[in-house]
Amino acid sequence: MTGGPRLAGREFFATRTVGEALAGFRPARRTAVEEVPLAEALHRVPGAAVPAPGPLPGFARSTVDGYAVRAADTYGASEGLPSYLDLLGAVRMGAAPEVAVRPGGAVAMPTGGVLPEGADAVVMVEHTAETMPGTIEVTRPVAPGSGVVRADEDVAVGAPLVPGGRPLRAPDLGMLAAGGVTRVAVHARPRVVVLSTGDEVVPPETAALGPGQVRDATASALAGLVRDAGGEPVLAGIVSDEPGALEARLREVLPDADLVVVSAGSSVGARDETAGAVAALGDIWCHGLAIKPGKPTLLAECAGVPLIGLPGNPLSALVVFRLVGVPLVWRLAGCEAPPPEPSTRARLARDLPSAAGRLDVVQVAVRDGRAEPIFGPSALLSVLTRADGCIVVPEPATGLDAGTEVEVTLYR
Amino acid sequence: MTGGPRLAGREFFATRTVGEALAGFRPARRTAVEEVPLAEALHRVPGAAVPAPGPLPGFARSTVDGYAVRAADTYGASEGLPSYLDLLGAVRMGAAPEVAVRPGGAVAMPTGGVLPEGADAVVMVEHTAETMPGTIEVTRPVAPGSGVVRADEDVAVGAPLVPGGRPLRAPDLGMLAAGGVTRVAVHARPRVVVLSTGDEVVPPETAALGPGQVRDATASALAGLVRDAGGEPVLAGIVSDEPGALEARLREVLPDADLVVVSAGSSVGARDETAGAVAALGDIWCHGLAIKPGKPTLLAECAGVPLIGLPGNPLSALVVFRLVGVPLVWRLAGCEAPPPEPSTRARLARDLPSAAGRLDVVQVAVRDGRAEPIFGPSALLSVLTRADGCIVVPEPATGLDAGTEVEVTLYR
Repeated sequence: MTGGPRLAGREFFATRTVGEALAGFRPARRTAVEEVPLAEALHRVPGAAVPAPGPLPGFARSTVDGYAVRAADTYGASEGLPSYLDLLGAVRMGAAPEVAVRPGGAVAMPTGGVLPEGADAVVMVEHTAETMPGTIEVTRPVAPGSGVVRADEDVAVGAPLVPGGRPLRAPDLGMLAAGGVTRVAVHARPRVVVLSTGDEVVPPETAALGPGQVRDATASALAGLVRDAGGEPVLAGIVSDEPGALEARLREVLPDADLVVVSAGSSVGARDETAGAVAALGDIWCHGLAIKPGKPTLLAECAGVPLIGLPGNPLSALVVFRLVGVPLVWRLAGCEAPPPEPSTRARLARDLPSAAGRLDVVQVAVRDGRAEPIFGPSALLSVLTRADGCIVVPEPATGLDAGTEVEVTLYR
Repeated sequence: MTGGPRLAGREFFATRTVGEALAGFRPARRTAVEEVPLAEALHRVPGAAVPAPGPLPGFARSTVDGYAVRAADTYGASEGLPSYLDLLGAVRMGAAPEVAVRPGGAVAMPTGGVLPEGADAVVMVEHTAETMPGTIEVTRPVAPGSGVVRADEDVAVGAPLVPGGRPLRAPDLGMLAAGGVTRVAVHARPRVVVLSTGDEVVPPETAALGPGQVRDATASALAGLVRDAGGEPVLAGIVSDEPGALEARLREVLPDADLVVVSAGSSVGARDETAGAVAALGDIWCHGLAIKPGKPTLLAECAGVPLIGLPGNPLSALVVFRLVGVPLVWRLAGCEAPPPEPSTRARLARDLPSAAGRLDVVQVAVRDGRAEPIFGPSALLSVLTRADGCIVVPEPATGLDAGTEVEVTLYR
């Protein structure tokens, strides 16, 4: 990563655009590669392409029900003037052919059967007739290779069954199974340690709240986003606003973390405490993102471990983590381009003000192709749970007019 | 579900369009509701809306750093003519206010603090100055309610924290945590039993293949699609093409299944065997879908358990399961509208032929806004693993011209 200024006293830090943060904050850390069974490899990221141990399908294979033939024997065949071929036998599924195809001969083939020696094509049963026992009529010519896949047509030996650096999808698991690869070397799930702070914050299981107390909503929601990004969330509890408490806890969790996320208290004092603790342990790359909501965001690296200090409001924290944290979790697992998110186009139901030079993330409900912005203080989590998705108003824009077509990132 | 014809001998069955299948094949089965910890509830489907045990945030809460005031005391305030208010004290985070706000008074407030009695607004610190000890200047008027969220503004008591019937998203987990709900009643993951058939099919862990043998690719890939749809795949092994074997195995697996998927052998004989076995155990709703690839698809219900008979080629099987099986797995878990899939718009790089009356699903690679169709026999799994997504050419179309803008469903 490129260097950033260090904290000294209460200096001001670089405020960055989200684009700068995504392009510039790129810690080099990657998780180690481990072997997992195929059944657990879905959406995991192989460290490298997995080469095929052998060709696939492994033998010249019929793709139709019909007859294995020499293509030349069918040239000129038509409904009016069929080719007559001797029926020499039949191929059984999952078995070696017991007979070869000689000129003027044909062997009955099931879809998926092994092409017998001497044959170079399979004519579909629909273009044949067995009018006399022991003889078939072919009513259409076939070209060599027709009705057949070559022994290495799916994958050649040594060619990649699946690529490295991209999360494995369902069909990839099928391809690995076809190649006999039942254990896969994939990046370990990044361990994302979530630290909540704030004297007012209590655990979700707190039945009766004291005056001014709130249950920790952000940590559970962040855990969900981390899981969606292929990471392993580690909820490391709530740290008080007492001076030194956060720094001490950070020293404890850093050695076992691939990423630390500090869900900061929402007051100015709590935010200053986060910056101070982080500055004592590493380099702050930016303090302040040009985004609404989410301005008081801190990006840093401490002893090789990236750290994100999130704003105190749950809504702001989740908006920032989606935008900046999720791609980082993927990258820690070796995936440079996160999988695409669902989206849809819709027309803005009303005018949307925005300040130039700032990225605005607006929650919207989508109905019948219209995107209705959901306004409300970012202290309200319900703004987010009522939304179907969000739209991003880019930095240069000074607002969008009602009726504008916008791209809505949909939540799932 | 509506009734379908029963198998008798080798009659022909109803062939359906995909639209008919999605609208008409709607087994009533739903999984039972079970309680799971919040940390395991991501993407699970609550059986019903979860009501808030108490209001949220639970107290009138400041949304800014500043001073709690009576709004009326600030009316007419300006830079030139500030309102002067007596500073009466300060609110601490997570604690009850120790002082009330009387007319002409103000109390210092952190973001997230409890609004003291007597106050009806919080003025931002940016619009104040503490020029003399014990007195603050307010330079802008605030309206009642400004800088504050009401005690039940996020969620009122009894109102839903999260809706039923929709998979829980990350922010939903935060909302449940905020409400103190740490165990959630969700539909059990549908148990999807996958039966592979075919004498040529051997398990993926088979090191050395015999002549004509292929490893079971489809079951592993289906397991991935089932997991993506929130189901629990149960790979129940490979059944030989021997007459009666499939029927016997189906009788064994049906009692513990919410959905049975038969990955059929690819030959005509194997397909007939599937239809015969299923007809002996339940009602066949359709046999044959107007889709390419994927025509030899069977939809049935056996003793209240839906069953999908898939085509033998892995590519065809996965195309059909994505289209018909995935929404069914979601519905079994109580979710009527599956979460959205990622998609993008692109221009077709070449002409795409299609037959009217048939849905064509075409695999494509997407580069620079262009969708390049990947052609090849549906016996090739690599057609699917090389694709970034697919496009659907609807039944009425007779093909699409190069340059047409198409919607590509992207794989992730």
